[in-house]
Amino acid sequence: MTPTYEVCLTPALLPHFTLKEKVIVVVDIFRATSSIVAAFDAGVKHIRPAATVAEALSHKSQPNTFLAGERDGKPLIDFDFGNSPTVFLENARKLAGKALVITTTNGTKAIEAGKGGAKIVIGAFLNLAALAAHLKAQQHSVICLCAGWKNHINMEDTLFAGALGGLLDSHFHISGDAALLAKQLYAKNQEELFNLLKSASHYQRLAKFGVEDDLRYCITHIDVSQHIPKLEKGMLVVE
Amino acid sequence: MTPTYEVCLTPALLPHFTLKEKVIVVVDIFRATSSIVAAFDAGVKHIRPAATVAEALSHKSQPNTFLAGERDGKPLIDFDFGNSPTVFLENARKLAGKALVITTTNGTKAIEAGKGGAKIVIGAFLNLAALAAHLKAQQHSVICLCAGWKNHINMEDTLFAGALGGLLDSHFHISGDAALLAKQLYAKNQEELFNLLKSASHYQRLAKFGVEDDLRYCITHIDVSQHIPKLEKGMLVVE
Repeated sequence: MTPTYEVCLTPALLPHFTLKEKVIVVVDIFRATSSIVAAFDAGVKHIRPAATVAEALSHKSQPNTFLAGERDGKPLIDFDFGNSPTVFLENARKLAGKALVITTTNGTKAIEAGKGGAKIVIGAFLNLAALAAHLKAQQHSVICLCAGWKNHINMEDTLFAGALGGLLDSHFHISGDAALLAKQLYAKNQEELFNLLKSASHYQRLAKFGVEDDLRYCITHIDVSQHIPKLEKGMLVVE
Repeated sequence: MTPTYEVCLTPALLPHFTLKEKVIVVVDIFRATSSIVAAFDAGVKHIRPAATVAEALSHKSQPNTFLAGERDGKPLIDFDFGNSPTVFLENARKLAGKALVITTTNGTKAIEAGKGGAKIVIGAFLNLAALAAHLKAQQHSVICLCAGWKNHINMEDTLFAGALGGLLDSHFHISGDAALLAKQLYAKNQEELFNLLKSASHYQRLAKFGVEDDLRYCITHIDVSQHIPKLEKGMLVVE
């Protein structure tokens, strides 16, 4: 039977999906999942997603471990890093072989929400093609779980879900109108992604914090990474 | 202050919106709100939305009252009508001046969900321009509440939300990515609405019941009605 590709536009809608035996692709383009992929590109060994700031801080004294994260787009006190893919890449020498603990407003919560599936993998425009190839090579149905913004849907995660749907179309049944809508939205706007996103709410919110270079990186550096982070025993790792 | 236009893509997400003092536009293109507008076009005096089949049946013995509705797209036993805009229009002579009690899978539940707002009005492609003019003429912010399909979003309601957003753009602040996304989706697909909808899940589900003419009517008869049904004391009326 052809596996299905579904899209859940916000974790608030996830209770209405059947997760069992499906691969859950967690996506939070601005910026958690882009940052996670970039951190592996920078040579990080593994990443522990922490749902709360307190949980992240409890790992502070561990050797060879850095804390990273944000709340509402802003950096956190006593953390080593924010949630910036470009800063991770600039600090590749410092990060290589080290562990990262990361907590973010929406992204790490979406990872937690996706735990009812067979497997959790991390998606971003950075690893789009590699992820699509990986998903095609296995036989599981897929749910793309968009982290959104505080229970609301957002443009950038929806566009990513649509881009992935377009690549999976030949091997998967695009199931449900959310998947169809996302795919159509991406197909009709892929030449002007950045312009469309500039008017989106999350972009405008984050741009106020001076992270426009980051946002541009997350959207325009498509397929620069071969890393497909997956969750194993509470830890994100790559092969 | 410029009023806002927000879009709630399914009633399951409505708890994350602030309804107070806002006008709630309830939309269920296939077919409840299209049918409600068409019933007023057919001369119905008022319509009582009933959340359950049992509630609708409790009105059966009332004089000059017809029962209408469906569950999962199928007609209901002991009801006078299904949920068909074209059948309502064909029965204009029978329906003129009469009362209708209507219950549907998604639409009447969305009306119930929207009751936290200042006012509920009914939207469909049939009354799109009249509705937009009505909303522009008042000063309230608006939430377009898409009925969707059993807590999932659907294509046709999202496209309507986008069409309305496009018309309101000059007078309202398009607020949130759901509204932006819907507006963009409609703008990029308005020349081929029917083709896009033919691949959508709800269309395919309903087409199996032989109501394709109805579906085509709901999508292609744009602006044929001046009626803007509003909820007053539990009853839908027009001015």
